[in-house]
Amino acid sequence: MQQVLRIAIDMDGVIADHLSKHLELYNRDYQDQLTFADLQGKKLREVAKCGIEVQNYYRDLAFFRDLVVMEGSQEVIQQLQKNYEVFITTAAMEFPSSFQAKYGWLTEHFDFIPKGNIVFCGNKSIIQADYLIDDNSYNFKNFKGKGILYTAPHNVFETKHARVNNWQEVAALFLS
Amino acid sequence: MQQVLRIAIDMDGVIADHLSKHLELYNRDYQDQLTFADLQGKKLREVAKCGIEVQNYYRDLAFFRDLVVMEGSQEVIQQLQKNYEVFITTAAMEFPSSFQAKYGWLTEHFDFIPKGNIVFCGNKSIIQADYLIDDNSYNFKNFKGKGILYTAPHNVFETKHARVNNWQEVAALFLS
Repeated sequence: MQQVLRIAIDMDGVIADHLSKHLELYNRDYQDQLTFADLQGKKLREVAKCGIEVQNYYRDLAFFRDLVVMEGSQEVIQQLQKNYEVFITTAAMEFPSSFQAKYGWLTEHFDFIPKGNIVFCGNKSIIQADYLIDDNSYNFKNFKGKGILYTAPHNVFETKHARVNNWQEVAALFLS
Repeated sequence: MQQVLRIAIDMDGVIADHLSKHLELYNRDYQDQLTFADLQGKKLREVAKCGIEVQNYYRDLAFFRDLVVMEGSQEVIQQLQKNYEVFITTAAMEFPSSFQAKYGWLTEHFDFIPKGNIVFCGNKSIIQADYLIDDNSYNFKNFKGKGILYTAPHNVFETKHARVNNWQEVAALFLS
């Protein structure tokens, strides 16, 4: 019997569009007009007037609750589940106030993923999987499987990893 | 350079004594007098008058917040950290209302464990570690490392796994 391969999938920037909301709130509160184009190769905290404090939006209990679902992610993940084990692995420990919102969001939009396949972690080297789709390449560093970089503004200049630009490319990679 | 081995450690029944509190609340509310001795080889839900409903105590937001720390666990884990990478890996997804209480409890009693080394998961086969110390042997089933059964009333008759009866035995196993 062939072993089913396992794909671990990050949440923010991969299935949840946290950046659009983050930019919108920041622009509103700091009278700025930053766009995705201003973030090429950079994190918002590197260009925001308020610097690292822009992370404080993540501490809001509700920030992660109403994010827009990344286009195609639901359909492709349901297809992936036919041939792979799929886990959602999200870094939540730095912002523990986000637990309930993230869980609620997943329950609402990805109810087809078993609850036992949801992981809130910090350091993703703890993840045992064959693939990790993530927008932060530092998560690949001690990951034993293959890292696949999901394109986000901050990572566009990185060239070390396999890359997917959208969920259609994830489908092409794993389902063709 | 030799790689540092990683030990994943379960929370309930291993570093947190959830069973004493569970028994106390159940006995109070159902006018029963169950003790640890009545639970040899059994889960509380198998002997409780209310059956599986006894699990509902876990849904209380505060249930996991004031559990007694298992004797010796803090001291031994601090010793382990000198030679191993230590992660806390707890099944929390079935009772999402427990997130904050579990996190608060860990922050209070195990503040020497980096937040990035805390994992809330469901299925523990997702854990990449060399050892897993856990009182539920089903967590060893698809775990790639070595499972070490921490004695709890429900598992006393199991013989398939390496076993530790207390934190002194954990120390003896890993530090001698």
